[in-house]
Amino acid sequence: MSSETGKNIKLSIFGQSHSEAIGAVIDGIPAGESFDLSEIMSFMRRRAPGGQSYSTARREADRPRILSGLLRDEGAEGEIYLSCGAPICAVIENSDTRSKDYENLRYTPRPSHADFPAYVKYKGFNDIRGGGHFSGRLTAPLCFAGALCRSMLKKRGISVGAHIYSIGEIRDEAFDSVKLTGEEAEAPGLKAFSTISDEAGERMLSVIAEKKAQGDSVGGIVECVVTGLPAGLGDPMFDGVENIIAALLFGIPAVKGVEFGEGFSLSRMTGSRANDPYEIREGRVRTVTNRNGGILGGITTGMPLIVRAAIKPTPSIALPQDSVDLREMREEKLTIKGRHDPCIVPRAVPCIEAAVAFSLCDLMAGTGAFID
Amino acid sequence: MSSETGKNIKLSIFGQSHSEAIGAVIDGIPAGESFDLSEIMSFMRRRAPGGQSYSTARREADRPRILSGLLRDEGAEGEIYLSCGAPICAVIENSDTRSKDYENLRYTPRPSHADFPAYVKYKGFNDIRGGGHFSGRLTAPLCFAGALCRSMLKKRGISVGAHIYSIGEIRDEAFDSVKLTGEEAEAPGLKAFSTISDEAGERMLSVIAEKKAQGDSVGGIVECVVTGLPAGLGDPMFDGVENIIAALLFGIPAVKGVEFGEGFSLSRMTGSRANDPYEIREGRVRTVTNRNGGILGGITTGMPLIVRAAIKPTPSIALPQDSVDLREMREEKLTIKGRHDPCIVPRAVPCIEAAVAFSLCDLMAGTGAFID
Amino acid sequence: MSSETGKNIKLSIFGQSHSEAIGAVIDGIPAGESFDLSEIMSFMRRRAPGGQSYSTARREADRPRILSGLLRDEGAEGEIYLSCGAPICAVIENSDTRSKDYENLRYTPRPSHADFPAYVKYKGFNDIRGGGHFSGRLTAPLCFAGALCRSMLKKRGISVGAHIYSIGEIRDEAFDSVKLTGEEAEAPGLKAFSTISDEAGERMLSVIAEKKAQGDSVGGIVECVVTGLPAGLGDPMFDGVENIIAALLFGIPAVKGVEFGEGFSLSRMTGSRANDPYEIREGRVRTVTNRNGGILGGITTGMPLIVRAAIKPTPSIALPQDSVDLREMREEKLTIKGRHDPCIVPRAVPCIEAAVAFSLCDLMAGTGAFID
Amino acid sequence: MSSETGKNIKLSIFGQSHSEAIGAVIDGIPAGESFDLSEIMSFMRRRAPGGQSYSTARREADRPRILSGLLRDEGAEGEIYLSCGAPICAVIENSDTRSKDYENLRYTPRPSHADFPAYVKYKGFNDIRGGGHFSGRLTAPLCFAGALCRSMLKKRGISVGAHIYSIGEIRDEAFDSVKLTGEEAEAPGLKAFSTISDEAGERMLSVIAEKKAQGDSVGGIVECVVTGLPAGLGDPMFDGVENIIAALLFGIPAVKGVEFGEGFSLSRMTGSRANDPYEIREGRVRTVTNRNGGILGGITTGMPLIVRAAIKPTPSIALPQDSVDLREMREEKLTIKGRHDPCIVPRAVPCIEAAVAFSLCDLMAGTGAFID
Repeated sequence: MSSETGKNIKLSIFGQSHSEAIGAVIDGIPAGESFDLSEIMSFMRRRAPGGQSYSTARREADRPRILSGLLRDEGAEGEIYLSCGAPICAVIENSDTRSKDYENLRYTPRPSHADFPAYVKYKGFNDIRGGGHFSGRLTAPLCFAGALCRSMLKKRGISVGAHIYSIGEIRDEAFDSVKLTGEEAEAPGLKAFSTISDEAGERMLSVIAEKKAQGDSVGGIVECVVTGLPAGLGDPMFDGVENIIAALLFGIPAVKGVEFGEGFSLSRMTGSRANDPYEIREGRVRTVTNRNGGILGGITTGMPLIVRAAIKPTPSIALPQDSVDLREMREEKLTIKGRHDPCIVPRAVPCIEAAVAFSLCDLMAGTGAFID
Repeated sequence: MSSETGKNIKLSIFGQSHSEAIGAVIDGIPAGESFDLSEIMSFMRRRAPGGQSYSTARREADRPRILSGLLRDEGAEGEIYLSCGAPICAVIENSDTRSKDYENLRYTPRPSHADFPAYVKYKGFNDIRGGGHFSGRLTAPLCFAGALCRSMLKKRGISVGAHIYSIGEIRDEAFDSVKLTGEEAEAPGLKAFSTISDEAGERMLSVIAEKKAQGDSVGGIVECVVTGLPAGLGDPMFDGVENIIAALLFGIPAVKGVEFGEGFSLSRMTGSRANDPYEIREGRVRTVTNRNGGILGGITTGMPLIVRAAIKPTPSIALPQDSVDLREMREEKLTIKGRHDPCIVPRAVPCIEAAVAFSLCDLMAGTGAFID
Repeated sequence: MSSETGKNIKLSIFGQSHSEAIGAVIDGIPAGESFDLSEIMSFMRRRAPGGQSYSTARREADRPRILSGLLRDEGAEGEIYLSCGAPICAVIENSDTRSKDYENLRYTPRPSHADFPAYVKYKGFNDIRGGGHFSGRLTAPLCFAGALCRSMLKKRGISVGAHIYSIGEIRDEAFDSVKLTGEEAEAPGLKAFSTISDEAGERMLSVIAEKKAQGDSVGGIVECVVTGLPAGLGDPMFDGVENIIAALLFGIPAVKGVEFGEGFSLSRMTGSRANDPYEIREGRVRTVTNRNGGILGGITTGMPLIVRAAIKPTPSIALPQDSVDLREMREEKLTIKGRHDPCIVPRAVPCIEAAVAFSLCDLMAGTGAFID
Repeated sequence: MSSETGKNIKLSIFGQSHSEAIGAVIDGIPAGESFDLSEIMSFMRRRAPGGQSYSTARREADRPRILSGLLRDEGAEGEIYLSCGAPICAVIENSDTRSKDYENLRYTPRPSHADFPAYVKYKGFNDIRGGGHFSGRLTAPLCFAGALCRSMLKKRGISVGAHIYSIGEIRDEAFDSVKLTGEEAEAPGLKAFSTISDEAGERMLSVIAEKKAQGDSVGGIVECVVTGLPAGLGDPMFDGVENIIAALLFGIPAVKGVEFGEGFSLSRMTGSRANDPYEIREGRVRTVTNRNGGILGGITTGMPLIVRAAIKPTPSIALPQDSVDLREMREEKLTIKGRHDPCIVPRAVPCIEAAVAFSLCDLMAGTGAFID
């Protein structure tokens, strides 16, 4: 078991890159929530491949077919759906698959992909086409679930947004960790390339283009922020906001590090510099700085939540690499065919938002927050 | 709910810093496992306060009283216990408590501690003495559970070890991420100050002493490694080794970041540099480098597992800080009394090992690995 | 959340009676298991409506479309599928829906159906067509999952079978609770009407026909047995075989009681009569009687497992009934239109087998039993 | 794993009959709940052994020592405790143990006890003294948890009560399943022998005395009712009120059957008789009858909840029985020494109440019901 998460809202993701379809079941969305399909589609398009210079040439409409749990609101304008309380299942067909590209990979694992450990774990029975269940394509249903959750939070004044914090050594501008508004949080996601600074974005794009020309790839960091959260959400020890978000973020392929607030930088600070002093601002308790990223003891402080995920460079590169033949147990050169992103970071931005939005909705669902 | 974790082995931790006792229930340890109490006590002493210059002056014997689940092996030499299959409960009495130190904190939250969000969440009913359930003291039962798990793994050829990777800006030497042996992994933990390089350790100690003298504190990073793991452990997406370990590590107070392998550094690399090529070594499939830290797609590769946790500086410092009075909603200066570690990192080393060992035992318990 | 169960194998069921489709995601089936689709279809046909005198006139092909997790074994004869380790999703389209039949039920709850509590819980947003998510139709994906599990057990020498123990006051013959073979256990399921005694079956059919003619319905009991189970399966207290099977059985619509072995009859016995003495038979420890139904302390004894589920009469009857108008809060007569089974018990037989088979597979998956 | 249950409130029970202590950890009780220790002790005394003719001669004070999670309310009269939000741990010492009584049972399983399957499961390492973790004594911590939950429900107008429905063939009077009040529900529990009818109680006592004199034992049925529940509690399919209560009830030793409302009797009824028609009573939607026991589709209807548990006769009888020697694999006569209840049903009454109260609190905790 592996592809199921959540406590109060359950998310079960299924599918392989080249199976008939992929999809998600989301169980626990309260009845009577209304969702605008066009908004959900906008969010999912941020992840969908095709069109951009930095993404795979594979094209998928990625239009979810809703099998259950949502009823069309006939009275409303536009494609509005109302949750009926039953589990929501959405399915996305796989159409543009080129399975033949993967035949030479059956016994020759691609470095830094899951091929080798999957071969051992599944005794060779796993679906190798397109990375199977390990494919980044499985983040499409995650984004569907995340779109629902993000919309539920938005209605309660909570904004989830993210930007490309860095590509390789190039850094974006920073959010204001204390005074950040919901509008500012969501702004980068509305752009074709999700940075705060357009100039930094252009430099990132040229690095990506350069690596692509070299048959290479490059990694980066995505930073996600949440505004409008109430203080007091989360539990100590193992059910804290950090535990839950981190566990979900490591479910996104290529994420190798997660930090909250100043994260690893905090390890190099003194307490007098790292601590966030309190003040009264507009009649509320606020911290003057926000180096803890809005979470103390696993519980929200009411300040903006800040989390960053480190994303490794796409393992699929055009350059020849050293691999092995698993049957004959001998070393072998491998050249990867198929279509791949030279940099997965831009398309990871909505996936990170989705994971964070789902985590928070799941936590809030247990508090009665959605019972209006 | 919050203080319960694990899937195949359940760990439930209870207690507050100044309650009658703290402890843990560990349910799911197979029957017939033998444990040497002296070994468990050695492990727990690595975390226990008292004695060191960098730790709180609070002294606790931290000797667990075993209430259930373990039966004394009368035939064996030494204090050997055998698991009987029933949940194991161990209790540690709280003795050296000075609750009066905390009275001035009831409505004046300490910056970067959980005081304020806990006040909101628990409506003022939480136990503020010594940080209550948020106290670092709650890692003692975690270490008890970790000691059992670490011993179970050791018997199966799996070594869990950690070292102080850095204090402030001072770095320890590095482990060899490819050829690391179990003995090397465990070596730093056998020292009074858990570094690979004694020279780096001494420089760290002088930084800690300096911060203490200044009434300040300092953070650091703990790196944990595991050798001898089989390939194929863990599941894709949400039940991967990374998800599970990260979720547990964020349960340790002051952890603000978790990364695997090269972690955040991978985000700055190209694919050609970040990928770990395969080779055949001694008849087995191995990677030439180990930048992914022994995990791909959430599943172990059979290479050493490498994880790092960033630990923020102890929030309790002697310097005066800005806080607020939560009843009267006005700003207020706070000076923290009580006994505190100027640097929590050295004592966090066994806690990180414990969390990693528990995570792996939990994962392995679901595979039938412990059914001999 | 509600429609998700299992610990080592997760089953998530989705759909409403009249949504686009219904289906199941089954996560945790080990890779390399082979399944014969014709065998799965045979099992599902035992539940499918249409054709029989006692079942609803609604006709559904109930052919599952497999979206993920199973790969066609191209080399094998017949429609053989191999699990690849990824979650298995199967979808069954809803075609023969007559939603108009349900319009008069929106505010007039049918007695003994879930309509009223669902109206309260879902604030009127629930899908009332055909009973929505509460429909007996949702047992079709349960049967799909059960068919996979039953087949996995069968390959390991474990047979799951059930019969119609009673309809109203008419009783079937009894299984031999001690010497029962797998073949005997499965025999009733191979018949069009699943009784041991054909003569009892005919009397039951005439009772059903009689109630149908009266516009009424009738209940009954299904008894399920499992042969070939090893001793030692299950855990004490809350994870025992009884807890897990009972929790699942109460998920089948209309089940109102569950008992193991002699069950409620044991409450009327003395210990000297109720206890199952031990003997050595064919070199193994066996009980002479089996009044405990193969389970002691929540753990299997190696004797046949025996469980019975009480099924209430179909609440949908043609006779007029007293109901209320929930908007206007006044009493109202209700006459139910639509197509309904006068007796749901015959079609419940494979559902009970499915639930029992799933429970046991889930339990066994945690023991490493499926790792060959 | 086995002795841990609950979703929003986690209950972890530990201990063996003759270990140092037994106890429970209850995680998830909201902060600020107040508990009267004398009330909790009254409830626990209903289960405690000693004194009555029908219970074991073992005497245990069964006074829980509270290690964590509850703070003494210094301002209040009496022993009032306030929950602080941290997990509550209570420990009960084992004092009056006579472990020698069990030596002859090491390889000679007592019929209808868990001895044989436990021997297989735990490979002989289980604690056989007093039944170890399978002992009825483990219901003491369940009753502690149940006492807390019952008190929390009571404060919200929800009463949980139970009576001895039958002993052997002797039946108690019936509750009024429609008009039952909280006071009536709790009345039997206030008596020394928990029946509605004192006359029936006396006949039951004489049956028990008779069986005891014969060296035999006798079973019975406990019926539990809950008044004051809101409609709409519970979820369809696998998280219904029935699933959750049944799963917990089967965790109580000797329970072999569970039914709701008319339960197994419903299987013998027609729909026209079994259905509960609706009416408007005092401005609310009520059912005229309550044959479904207050639950439809897994969700409460607002009518009294009714559940019955069948309890088998105490397996420990003084008469000689047929058993086997597990080492030498030969048949052997067994005579059980030790102290045992000739009828466990009276002491099971509070255990059943505890399990039902815990289940409902757990369900309600997920709805925000306890956030005042």
